[in-house]
Amino acid sequence: MTRRSTMADIASQAGVSISTVSKVLNGRSDVSAQTRAKVQRLLGQHGYTAPGRQERAGGLIEFVVNELDSPWAVELIRGAEEVVQKAGMGLVVSAVHGRSRLARQWLDALATRGSLGAILVISELSPSQERELRRFGIPFAVVHPAADPSPDVPSVGATNWPGGFTATRHLIELGHRRIAMIGGPPGRLSSRARLDGYRAALEEAGIAFDPSLVRHGDFGHELAHRHALDLLALPERPTAIFAGSDHQSLGAYRALRDRGLRVPEDVSVVGFDDLPFADWVTPRLTTVRQPLSEMTALAAHMVLQLLDGDDLDTTRVELATKLVIRESTAPAPAD
Amino acid sequence: MTRRSTMADIASQAGVSISTVSKVLNGRSDVSAQTRAKVQRLLGQHGYTAPGRQERAGGLIEFVVNELDSPWAVELIRGAEEVVQKAGMGLVVSAVHGRSRLARQWLDALATRGSLGAILVISELSPSQERELRRFGIPFAVVHPAADPSPDVPSVGATNWPGGFTATRHLIELGHRRIAMIGGPPGRLSSRARLDGYRAALEEAGIAFDPSLVRHGDFGHELAHRHALDLLALPERPTAIFAGSDHQSLGAYRALRDRGLRVPEDVSVVGFDDLPFADWVTPRLTTVRQPLSEMTALAAHMVLQLLDGDDLDTTRVELATKLVIRESTAPAPAD
Repeated sequence: MTRRSTMADIASQAGVSISTVSKVLNGRSDVSAQTRAKVQRLLGQHGYTAPGRQERAGGLIEFVVNELDSPWAVELIRGAEEVVQKAGMGLVVSAVHGRSRLARQWLDALATRGSLGAILVISELSPSQERELRRFGIPFAVVHPAADPSPDVPSVGATNWPGGFTATRHLIELGHRRIAMIGGPPGRLSSRARLDGYRAALEEAGIAFDPSLVRHGDFGHELAHRHALDLLALPERPTAIFAGSDHQSLGAYRALRDRGLRVPEDVSVVGFDDLPFADWVTPRLTTVRQPLSEMTALAAHMVLQLLDGDDLDTTRVELATKLVIRESTAPAPAD
Repeated sequence: MTRRSTMADIASQAGVSISTVSKVLNGRSDVSAQTRAKVQRLLGQHGYTAPGRQERAGGLIEFVVNELDSPWAVELIRGAEEVVQKAGMGLVVSAVHGRSRLARQWLDALATRGSLGAILVISELSPSQERELRRFGIPFAVVHPAADPSPDVPSVGATNWPGGFTATRHLIELGHRRIAMIGGPPGRLSSRARLDGYRAALEEAGIAFDPSLVRHGDFGHELAHRHALDLLALPERPTAIFAGSDHQSLGAYRALRDRGLRVPEDVSVVGFDDLPFADWVTPRLTTVRQPLSEMTALAAHMVLQLLDGDDLDTTRVELATKLVIRESTAPAPAD
């Protein structure tokens, strides 16, 4: 009998949900002592225990991402792959392209494959998908959540607010006063936190927030290019642009070249992410490093820990961002 | 009984190797009629057939790459993932970092997982690893082979020679005569083919090959930067640089900026790969497109076809490269 059918069996005999059986297996505290005892007895009768290190060997961990279309994705896969491979397990990579039909297919496939855990880097985990994952009774963690996940869903993010704050303060320290921001999608938590960090740094320096200097993008290159052209056409042009992603920074680079302006002599640019190309483009991009591979590595560790039946010290972690100063920022030009 | 142990059993009863049993299952022609008949009889007795479309559902295909450290990797994963997901299967991604210990671990894990096929994007498949893969009796295909694979190993590459030829002819047509080349590792087939394409285009145009204009790199940014500085210091400076990868092109961009030279007004640059950032950098990079995701998609199709017991029309395929002209090439400056 498969692990899954055994669990379903035990759940029905105990008169509880599969998710409760899984909670008991994973040593979670939100199960009454009475239910726990009943389930544990049945587990014992079925000779069933949580998969131990031995059993885990050859097991699978799912890695789900919206798109496999950016250097971003490979950073994320790398971190998870290293941890999962070291644990003697395999990482199954799936892209769901933000489509619920594919997410549905993936959930079916996950059940067929009998995967032991999942790492989700999808912008939205719908409540029904979350319920279904719980029903499977396998541990999962969310990386870079777009919206606030349920408090008991393990999640790993980056410190976006301090990232936005530090980037903006760096520009202020270089003497910039008119600092534009090209942010990501306003609906995403990370975009909002970066924007708030930017505002806080301005406020701290006594610089009035000017909404005309803020544009919202999609983290992509093309729209950022148009936004930057727009910003450069303002009567009083910004002397610095803080972009919500490295891709957006390259859009700003292009707009500046289109207008015959130099980076950083005329306009400084700061990005966000620190993807490998940030260090290869000319000028090398000053950017806020998001530890992408570390984030998925930590998510993988969390899933393995839950598989071992251990409690997590904390379910919500943000890893520190860090400003990496390169060549694209310089003192503000004299008026 | 697992698929593996059944095959081992049949092999021992038939007095042949597991690989022979697998050949019969995969409908390969290099098995004597007598052996084939014996094996097929035993397969029938065991009720064993090659996994059909039904059985495949939930099955796994392995994807092995040396490194997960470049935008390259995500292009490769994308193509394979789409095909494998559509077939209702899962893609297990592993990085072996060119280390035989990890390749060993991967082979062990593959056996434990009972994967049905493998796509290898590793620079070298050692003869012993190839033997072992055959022993497992699962179909596999090699993408972007570094060295010549055995004739019966399905492989998918890109047309590197025509790529080098077209890139160089484009520069010649723009009036360039002193065209430098920064190539990849000389030991790799792809590097040699691109270099030969470059030489052939020069020869066709009656331009003498000048070895001092050729440097060999590692497909990376840093070394290409040093090589480009070197080339620009020549008494008679090249007016164009053909780089063996997009990464190397960015190294050339940097060297040109270091020397106060403009792309493409002073020196033209052509890359190879057409990774997404080629269209985002400034100036947008003229480059030879390698259809990376199409290459792994085709490899995945080949593996699925072999799983179905079908013969491949051909085991060696090269997909066409294509010159994508953008902003980094321009007429040679007047002397």
